[in-house]
Amino acid sequence: MGGFFGVVSKSDCVMDLFYGTDYHSHLGTMRGGLAVRNLSSYTRFIHDITNAQFRSKFEDDITKMRGNSGIGVISDYESQPLIIGSHLGVYAIVTVGVIKNAEELANRTFEKKTTHFSQMSGGEINPTELVATIINQGASFEDGIQKAQDTIEGSCSLLILTAEGIYAARDKFGRTPVVIGRKDGTRAASLETCAFPNLHFEIEKYLGPGEVVRITEGGIEQLVPPRETMRICGFLWVYYGYPASNYEGINVEDTRNRCGEMLAKKDDVSVDLVAGIPDSGTGHAIGYANEAGIPFRRPFVKYTPTWPRSFMPQVQETRDLVAKMKLIPIRELIEGSRLLFCEDSIVRGTQLKDTIKRLYDFGAKEVHMRPACPPLVYGCKFLNFSRSRSELDLAARTAIKELEGSADRFLDEYATRGSEKNRAMVERIRRRLGLTSLKYQELDDLVKAIGLPKERLCTYCWDAVG
Amino acid sequence: MGGFFGVVSKSDCVMDLFYGTDYHSHLGTMRGGLAVRNLSSYTRFIHDITNAQFRSKFEDDITKMRGNSGIGVISDYESQPLIIGSHLGVYAIVTVGVIKNAEELANRTFEKKTTHFSQMSGGEINPTELVATIINQGASFEDGIQKAQDTIEGSCSLLILTAEGIYAARDKFGRTPVVIGRKDGTRAASLETCAFPNLHFEIEKYLGPGEVVRITEGGIEQLVPPRETMRICGFLWVYYGYPASNYEGINVEDTRNRCGEMLAKKDDVSVDLVAGIPDSGTGHAIGYANEAGIPFRRPFVKYTPTWPRSFMPQVQETRDLVAKMKLIPIRELIEGSRLLFCEDSIVRGTQLKDTIKRLYDFGAKEVHMRPACPPLVYGCKFLNFSRSRSELDLAARTAIKELEGSADRFLDEYATRGSEKNRAMVERIRRRLGLTSLKYQELDDLVKAIGLPKERLCTYCWDAVG
Amino acid sequence: MGGFFGVVSKSDCVMDLFYGTDYHSHLGTMRGGLAVRNLSSYTRFIHDITNAQFRSKFEDDITKMRGNSGIGVISDYESQPLIIGSHLGVYAIVTVGVIKNAEELANRTFEKKTTHFSQMSGGEINPTELVATIINQGASFEDGIQKAQDTIEGSCSLLILTAEGIYAARDKFGRTPVVIGRKDGTRAASLETCAFPNLHFEIEKYLGPGEVVRITEGGIEQLVPPRETMRICGFLWVYYGYPASNYEGINVEDTRNRCGEMLAKKDDVSVDLVAGIPDSGTGHAIGYANEAGIPFRRPFVKYTPTWPRSFMPQVQETRDLVAKMKLIPIRELIEGSRLLFCEDSIVRGTQLKDTIKRLYDFGAKEVHMRPACPPLVYGCKFLNFSRSRSELDLAARTAIKELEGSADRFLDEYATRGSEKNRAMVERIRRRLGLTSLKYQELDDLVKAIGLPKERLCTYCWDAVG
Amino acid sequence: MGGFFGVVSKSDCVMDLFYGTDYHSHLGTMRGGLAVRNLSSYTRFIHDITNAQFRSKFEDDITKMRGNSGIGVISDYESQPLIIGSHLGVYAIVTVGVIKNAEELANRTFEKKTTHFSQMSGGEINPTELVATIINQGASFEDGIQKAQDTIEGSCSLLILTAEGIYAARDKFGRTPVVIGRKDGTRAASLETCAFPNLHFEIEKYLGPGEVVRITEGGIEQLVPPRETMRICGFLWVYYGYPASNYEGINVEDTRNRCGEMLAKKDDVSVDLVAGIPDSGTGHAIGYANEAGIPFRRPFVKYTPTWPRSFMPQVQETRDLVAKMKLIPIRELIEGSRLLFCEDSIVRGTQLKDTIKRLYDFGAKEVHMRPACPPLVYGCKFLNFSRSRSELDLAARTAIKELEGSADRFLDEYATRGSEKNRAMVERIRRRLGLTSLKYQELDDLVKAIGLPKERLCTYCWDAVG
Repeated sequence: MGGFFGVVSKSDCVMDLFYGTDYHSHLGTMRGGLAVRNLSSYTRFIHDITNAQFRSKFEDDITKMRGNSGIGVISDYESQPLIIGSHLGVYAIVTVGVIKNAEELANRTFEKKTTHFSQMSGGEINPTELVATIINQGASFEDGIQKAQDTIEGSCSLLILTAEGIYAARDKFGRTPVVIGRKDGTRAASLETCAFPNLHFEIEKYLGPGEVVRITEGGIEQLVPPRETMRICGFLWVYYGYPASNYEGINVEDTRNRCGEMLAKKDDVSVDLVAGIPDSGTGHAIGYANEAGIPFRRPFVKYTPTWPRSFMPQVQETRDLVAKMKLIPIRELIEGSRLLFCEDSIVRGTQLKDTIKRLYDFGAKEVHMRPACPPLVYGCKFLNFSRSRSELDLAARTAIKELEGSADRFLDEYATRGSEKNRAMVERIRRRLGLTSLKYQELDDLVKAIGLPKERLCTYCWDAVG
Repeated sequence: MGGFFGVVSKSDCVMDLFYGTDYHSHLGTMRGGLAVRNLSSYTRFIHDITNAQFRSKFEDDITKMRGNSGIGVISDYESQPLIIGSHLGVYAIVTVGVIKNAEELANRTFEKKTTHFSQMSGGEINPTELVATIINQGASFEDGIQKAQDTIEGSCSLLILTAEGIYAARDKFGRTPVVIGRKDGTRAASLETCAFPNLHFEIEKYLGPGEVVRITEGGIEQLVPPRETMRICGFLWVYYGYPASNYEGINVEDTRNRCGEMLAKKDDVSVDLVAGIPDSGTGHAIGYANEAGIPFRRPFVKYTPTWPRSFMPQVQETRDLVAKMKLIPIRELIEGSRLLFCEDSIVRGTQLKDTIKRLYDFGAKEVHMRPACPPLVYGCKFLNFSRSRSELDLAARTAIKELEGSADRFLDEYATRGSEKNRAMVERIRRRLGLTSLKYQELDDLVKAIGLPKERLCTYCWDAVG
Repeated sequence: MGGFFGVVSKSDCVMDLFYGTDYHSHLGTMRGGLAVRNLSSYTRFIHDITNAQFRSKFEDDITKMRGNSGIGVISDYESQPLIIGSHLGVYAIVTVGVIKNAEELANRTFEKKTTHFSQMSGGEINPTELVATIINQGASFEDGIQKAQDTIEGSCSLLILTAEGIYAARDKFGRTPVVIGRKDGTRAASLETCAFPNLHFEIEKYLGPGEVVRITEGGIEQLVPPRETMRICGFLWVYYGYPASNYEGINVEDTRNRCGEMLAKKDDVSVDLVAGIPDSGTGHAIGYANEAGIPFRRPFVKYTPTWPRSFMPQVQETRDLVAKMKLIPIRELIEGSRLLFCEDSIVRGTQLKDTIKRLYDFGAKEVHMRPACPPLVYGCKFLNFSRSRSELDLAARTAIKELEGSADRFLDEYATRGSEKNRAMVERIRRRLGLTSLKYQELDDLVKAIGLPKERLCTYCWDAVG
Repeated sequence: MGGFFGVVSKSDCVMDLFYGTDYHSHLGTMRGGLAVRNLSSYTRFIHDITNAQFRSKFEDDITKMRGNSGIGVISDYESQPLIIGSHLGVYAIVTVGVIKNAEELANRTFEKKTTHFSQMSGGEINPTELVATIINQGASFEDGIQKAQDTIEGSCSLLILTAEGIYAARDKFGRTPVVIGRKDGTRAASLETCAFPNLHFEIEKYLGPGEVVRITEGGIEQLVPPRETMRICGFLWVYYGYPASNYEGINVEDTRNRCGEMLAKKDDVSVDLVAGIPDSGTGHAIGYANEAGIPFRRPFVKYTPTWPRSFMPQVQETRDLVAKMKLIPIRELIEGSRLLFCEDSIVRGTQLKDTIKRLYDFGAKEVHMRPACPPLVYGCKFLNFSRSRSELDLAARTAIKELEGSADRFLDEYATRGSEKNRAMVERIRRRLGLTSLKYQELDDLVKAIGLPKERLCTYCWDAVG
């Protein structure tokens, strides 16, 4: 994924920029970057955050930064922000999203023989530079941004830092959020609203799909109105959004609590305690426990001091190590107990299988699993939150492959709740994970828990409607 | 405080040492260190961990380390481990504790005119070097360790890495724990047992007060038997121990749940939800909610990705910043609600006051506070977990000062539950914090929740019995 | 200035690339960079070398580099090499030179609305990216390089690393050298030939002005033949080339010795010893002493261990500090002596003035100065070796200003050896520096010492013919 | 070897300390360190300088240092300065020298069972800590320093930074120099006087053998008078001292020039040019050329920008690489020429052999070698400038081994100038190196060139009188 934060102020913006960007750390593991504008020049720093936290990497830099406007990014892939010079002037840019047709777009621009890409690494084009290239073909920033939205397959939200303020644009289907916050003499644009409360921003406006605005310390100017169709990612609430964030006015923690309640209402299993697989399972489990009147407890405690991140690194080996080391089991709460766990979603299930095995090793009598959403049957093609994972590794697809001999047959039927094939698939997954019982959330209940009309949500990974 | 981990193995011990030490990161914020023994030589690395996590600082180093035995430390003050050469041979040493009479001990050794301290910084003696100096006066390690225990005022647990294995010693009153773990061909000594499960160690033995053992991959040799009197710090369970750890066989999370239950049993307030001030308040709150049948929810979410530590840095300014930035409020759960919070203990109350104010800013109707222990009336003189804080800053003492004109009068009476002075003090604190109601845990209930006889616990900060 | 080195080999080229680039360290003080090609991808590292030597900055990197071809650069200004993707494919590029009409060229490309620059810093375009932009407008590399040579005012030599070998191009007037070296299975392109002997390369070919070749491990392919007119910088031999380098087949040290001989032949001053102002004055002084039969000695010794560079940093304050600290006077050789110094050229004369004052402070009886070239009257406009220095700061121009009230009058006359104005100017400089006598080299003698026809040399700074 | 610099001033001393220490960079390759005293506390930094220059490593640190007195060190072995606390108070200490009986001294102190060493690395005691241990046994600093001088076999000069000024002590036989310099309100103690001129110090006093003084900004107090016997290392002038330094009032460059003159006076070889093997050979060669009236020239140029150090790293592999890369041959000066080289001393001769071979490869007709001192027959046992080299590797000893079958026979005879064995040994060395002729300096001439009575010099490596 990745996340960004931009700020324009009457006074120096560096501390707001620093902390505001830092509050997106859960969304990326590769690169962090900050750029500020001061008089007519830009100061920029980019660091590798693979092995260290954003804040520790930029602590020295911010003492050298000064300026009334700036943008920052936590990136899961490319180095950002870029400082670009073109006929539009000199500007800084950050983007979040995924460009499925990057190669085609690059080749198309090469045809004009006048463009190049200089931010290459290992032979690959920097996606943010590619976006800038398309924007530069426009007569103005808003014109160029629309060109980019029209030609990019995938999604692309972005911030552009200029002499005239910050251009903020949400991707054309609104798959990722962009929200404007305000405080005295200052405006900010953020992907996650959890960056706002501690910096004293109030939410001023949720950008609509494809909407483009220019923010200054004095106001918001709408340059391109929102499009009709919205398909915001439902998985933001279920899994990778931060509990303290709101999208379309709907809070994440609150939604997770409701997800858990929905699960509990349709459940009648008898257990000793309810728990969540941290981090995202916690909110769901609290809702379940409260609704069911069963004690919520923590048989696993996450070792946050040094395994803090909730978003997973891309390298599988590291992912597995993190998965193993970050959760510490507590025998006193496990031994002899019937446990019910809420989890965001069983993605591949390999780590979960190990986790469940450990519960039995520590003496669990029963282990029941209640994912907060239906089985993931289709891989995401709109965002890169699963960049390195193959669709075929999904627990559902593995089960389908075992049942059909091919992972690609009868997907619609398998995705249909209550169908025979769906039940067989869930039973396969249950057996593979060694669970006492496994019941997924129904899609309707999930949609209800979120509270938006289903046609405003992207539910592609569950029912291929995106 | 600080924490340590040591390991002796038939095979290379570096990965166990690295992760085992890392699981003590919540106990210190200043220095991390690792030393391994390989053939007849020692390899050691020490890093400043003020601005970065232990793991990221040592990732390169461990590729250069090799050895079957090693010790590691997270230190809140001095650089460790030290490699010491003396008539006992060459050894590495780590210590945890506080030496109240350091200057006197140093001057006493200076009288012999043959000793010096070389690990000085800013004119202060490195406490671990001071301990080594005393140990070197013994005929053997066990002899020297006993000399150290007999002369040091405060407390001192330690690990010594030698050619013959690791000497592990618990402080004479057992204020801090030292636990031996075992797995195939390997033994470990740890302050926190939460380091054991994910490295596959089973708890083999809890050292008794003043006990000294030598561990090798083959076994545990008792060199000095445990002393009679034990005064393990009760605050370990309430506040700074990790939920997944056990001391004297008693789990922290489980104890915190019981603390919450005790609070709920004596309470009858009518509220909409129960929550914990993270991190340590969470376990208490879960217990309260389950006992009271009131929903547990999270109106504050901790931003763990980059504000991960639970133990507080020593610099007040940084402490306040961390306190402010790490907790993000969720308006949806706060607005219009009657909230009951469990907290470990109100130490100074200044940050808590801000937190409570923010709850009202976000629309809370009522805020009730239930600390898991009685008011802290006496400052700790046995461990350095509050090194930089003055006793007079304690919320209870501030209240006493306001009531009496002096912070030092009638302390016993103020510490007595139910006395008039005690009630006045609690009321003062309540008013200062702006709470709807404030009820502290009774000491007897806390002792019951832990489950040890009161005379085995240090309860000094609550009733001056330590 | 800056310098570059490229290598194509049958086997891994990294060590040759590393040391070959390092041998250009005297030409730049800002950035160092290396790029290698391995299979179809590029690995690149760029570091700030302001405060540390090239080698120490890249020692770790080269362990991660592998490839049969690569290019490296010591840059006095921009970050290089760049990895560029365009319709010509993906390539790496380094350049040396100065682009006087950069802004005009950038604006011209902006007119097409499809190009951008992403390597910007503080609002300035990276000159190497600008060169790449122009090259990309060509149908092939050689076509694009010629376009660049035709449009750039100033000078630009470059190396381009591609799948088909390295394109090496010398600037159109040959102001800077590019030389091809060969050893078994390997070819290299270098600005300084002093990089060749210790890496066992033999000089294979000096590129002519504007010549473009493509080198592979198997051979040299001429793509663009050399142009007629050559104007190689005469100052290379006098000052900033390395003594062990050859340009157009003519060695630097040898030329400097001849310069000194020329000076001695026209001189009859009676002194006790001859010395050089290090570094470049040394070669001239040796020639003078040998010809004159006067002892060569070292009244100043350069502290090479930590003041190693001969090329000056751009910041004046640092320049002055370096100038002061790097030369240590030896009283035993100075006191009571009549000293004659050879110097490359009196540029501004401010540091030299201090140096001369110190000689008198240490007891010198007489101080005579013999610059190896005529007075610098015109500032260079073809290379950036004096990027930060104003033409008006030249010692000659300061003298002219004092004499005429303006630094811009009668320049031709002042530049004419033996004219009254010329004699007055030299006398001014002598008096300002506090010299016993001052005699500049005659331009004809300098040209004779170098040995090329005058029309093949750029002598612009002396007589405005370039 | 190593070198040190200390300064006491009325005002802040940090810049003098920084540059004064830096001017000892040619004497060590392992560790650099600085300590300043400010009010009652010490600030200290130590860095590994293996791969980077002293200055670049300490540039950040000095911005954090402040104080009126300080000491610094370039160390070829251990980490320094140490901050030591003992009955003498808290002080900082640096030492230069070698302790031959370190193990015995350590064991002797261990007998008292009260001392330890904490500055250990890989099982070895830090020599500076060992010296401090002995000093601490004294009733005062001067008493302790004398104890150290009396018990240490080898040599030990040192500086001690205290509240009462800096104690400076020269080793008991004065093998290494310690010199006091003065400027307004400031005093400095330095091993190399080349640190003085650019910091504006005048030489105030050369300490005598074993002399101990305490310097303050106000004066020099003699605490222990110099001893009678002096044995200052003659090799300081020949090889490792810096040309701009003076010892016992005698300048190095000047002495080297005289060495060359001595060689020339006894020589009658007919050659085309005279040259020095850089760095130390240069001064000798200049003297030879001037006396003989043969041109001095530079057929090898040292690449100082990144191969700056003259003192050799301890690792042989690195030594060989440095030796190869730092000197660049110039064909124009070599081809067809009869060359005479002056060199400090042929130590092992292996690198010299390669160098000579390269001269023939580049077309030299004849190569004559004139070392500035007699053959090194005995390995130094008083200083550690050859710590890692075996006595048996000396070129003379290798020749003896070939002639006698043992490297240890008839050493006195071989060391006797003009003896048949001496002539045979020199002829062996000449043949092994491939020289046209080889003539060593006579010891009497060397002594004359230095100018001290022979009994004041250590000439151990040449005639076993030390």
